[in-house]
Amino acid sequence: MKIPFEELKAEFLRVLLKQNFEPQKAEQCAAIFAENSRDGVYTHGLNRFPTFVDYIKQGLIDSYAQPTLEKTFGLIEQWNGNLAPGMLNARFCTERAVALAKEHGMGCVAIRNTNHWMRGGTYGWQAAEAGCIGIHFTNTIALVPPWGGIDPRLGNNPLVIAVPRAEGHIVLDMAMSQYSMGKLMQYQGNNEELPLPGGYDEAGELSTDPGAIIRSKRLLPVGFWKGSGLALMLDLLVTILSQGKSTARITESTVESGVGQVFICIKDPDKETTSRLTEQILEFTKTSRPDTEGGIIAYPGENTLRTRIRNLKEGIPVREDIWNKVRAM
Amino acid sequence: MKIPFEELKAEFLRVLLKQNFEPQKAEQCAAIFAENSRDGVYTHGLNRFPTFVDYIKQGLIDSYAQPTLEKTFGLIEQWNGNLAPGMLNARFCTERAVALAKEHGMGCVAIRNTNHWMRGGTYGWQAAEAGCIGIHFTNTIALVPPWGGIDPRLGNNPLVIAVPRAEGHIVLDMAMSQYSMGKLMQYQGNNEELPLPGGYDEAGELSTDPGAIIRSKRLLPVGFWKGSGLALMLDLLVTILSQGKSTARITESTVESGVGQVFICIKDPDKETTSRLTEQILEFTKTSRPDTEGGIIAYPGENTLRTRIRNLKEGIPVREDIWNKVRAM
Repeated sequence: MKIPFEELKAEFLRVLLKQNFEPQKAEQCAAIFAENSRDGVYTHGLNRFPTFVDYIKQGLIDSYAQPTLEKTFGLIEQWNGNLAPGMLNARFCTERAVALAKEHGMGCVAIRNTNHWMRGGTYGWQAAEAGCIGIHFTNTIALVPPWGGIDPRLGNNPLVIAVPRAEGHIVLDMAMSQYSMGKLMQYQGNNEELPLPGGYDEAGELSTDPGAIIRSKRLLPVGFWKGSGLALMLDLLVTILSQGKSTARITESTVESGVGQVFICIKDPDKETTSRLTEQILEFTKTSRPDTEGGIIAYPGENTLRTRIRNLKEGIPVREDIWNKVRAM
Repeated sequence: MKIPFEELKAEFLRVLLKQNFEPQKAEQCAAIFAENSRDGVYTHGLNRFPTFVDYIKQGLIDSYAQPTLEKTFGLIEQWNGNLAPGMLNARFCTERAVALAKEHGMGCVAIRNTNHWMRGGTYGWQAAEAGCIGIHFTNTIALVPPWGGIDPRLGNNPLVIAVPRAEGHIVLDMAMSQYSMGKLMQYQGNNEELPLPGGYDEAGELSTDPGAIIRSKRLLPVGFWKGSGLALMLDLLVTILSQGKSTARITESTVESGVGQVFICIKDPDKETTSRLTEQILEFTKTSRPDTEGGIIAYPGENTLRTRIRNLKEGIPVREDIWNKVRAM
């Protein structure tokens, strides 16, 4: 089933207004959810929307709250998210980091006590659209065991890196687990094997069986010990700079709330030179012969853009059960 | 065979002075090579030293050169490494980034036209020792195929993240390939299988056979498509900010020279709070039950510190053939 972008967005807007969101905030949140589905990140678009509304109802997200400035360390700003909607806080922080970057070449904004930013890539695209390099990361509830361990103690702590480009921004948005829990559930629901090992089964063997991995809770960090280390470092940076909740503290509750994030923006030093160097890099990368006939070597964000164009033209694929659930809200 | 730290360092110093290094630079380079071996990174300590001297002799590294400031973009400094020894340039850039961070909360130094920094972790430890968070990365010659491709077009572009800690700094030093070429050769030389898949064999199958991977040149990026994307982004950031050679340009020569690097330092906002939050994170991580009896969950840098203490006490393990080669230089 496919739904036009504007219809999806209008439906989100209607539900949020019914939840007493202020009109401007409702509009911004609805746009972000609709854009996430439009860009093919269905897990953090329509599919996540009911949970978001549920968190509002439970009081875990405060739609009336605004971020407040807590401290500055030189050029670094530390904000308190006051449990406002994570997407609005993240949008705001990106704007602040862009403004600092435009003034000083670079800027860094850390926020604590915020909520899930949904698709991290959103704020990468935002920074790039403003002519800035963006380096953003968040911590999360514990989802991944540290290397050598069985019990989840690390967040999957997505890292976003964005580079502005006239022909389509380059935006990497990677969580530290090889597959997110949402992706594992999607494969399980479709009765499909993972294309590559995504964790360990209960016998401690690397596995492509999504169900076995969900049962063992032993999701694989990207690059084994390396992603485990990187996830830990990102939690350290977020927690130290925001002076907020670490993955350890977030995990004390069973629901994820009050996470921290860091937004670093760097002003593009020189549009023309950057464009020339960027094309040089992409062109060279794409000269690698594909490993399957007709395969393409895509840069991060290339497939997103392709999906966006297709979904805007043909409508956005939606899971009918979730779409009906939202319409009934 | 084991050699005391001071003897190793003295030997490096002797050779470099014979190569007409200025005494202070010889001292600094000798210390870095000896410290890399001391910390267990033998591939970028003693084992790499003969290649370093060879590059000096070939004129690829200019021991007399100094980095020069090219431009500033706000708080970002762009330097030209003038092909000076990579370790001295990287040390210098870290010092500059630390100085900027102490003044403005954060600093960013990009350098082009520099050389291999040997162990990236060196500059993470340096930043942490100066009370700063460090985020450093470099590009390299093409060593890894992009995801979906056969031919190497990406550097393994090591990323270093360091957090200062009184009881031992936390320092992640990760290349974007699952195993470095040096590590693959080490396993091959010892006739050992890799513990986990490290690339593809010539038939295009994931493999733990180091020889097959070296022959196919299809090293695995960490986390498959994710590390491929991250390696590309790091090359973009290095090249855009340093306005120097990308992996594409570096790869036009068969020897790696004139690489670029970025050094971001952030001043620890508050020693006491940082220490409390850091211990909270490490303690929680270590509560994950080990997957093998007696196993430990180590933070990045923990094993380095353990190796350092042991090697200082018992002497540094050296490959006798390389040690003799250096002594004969």
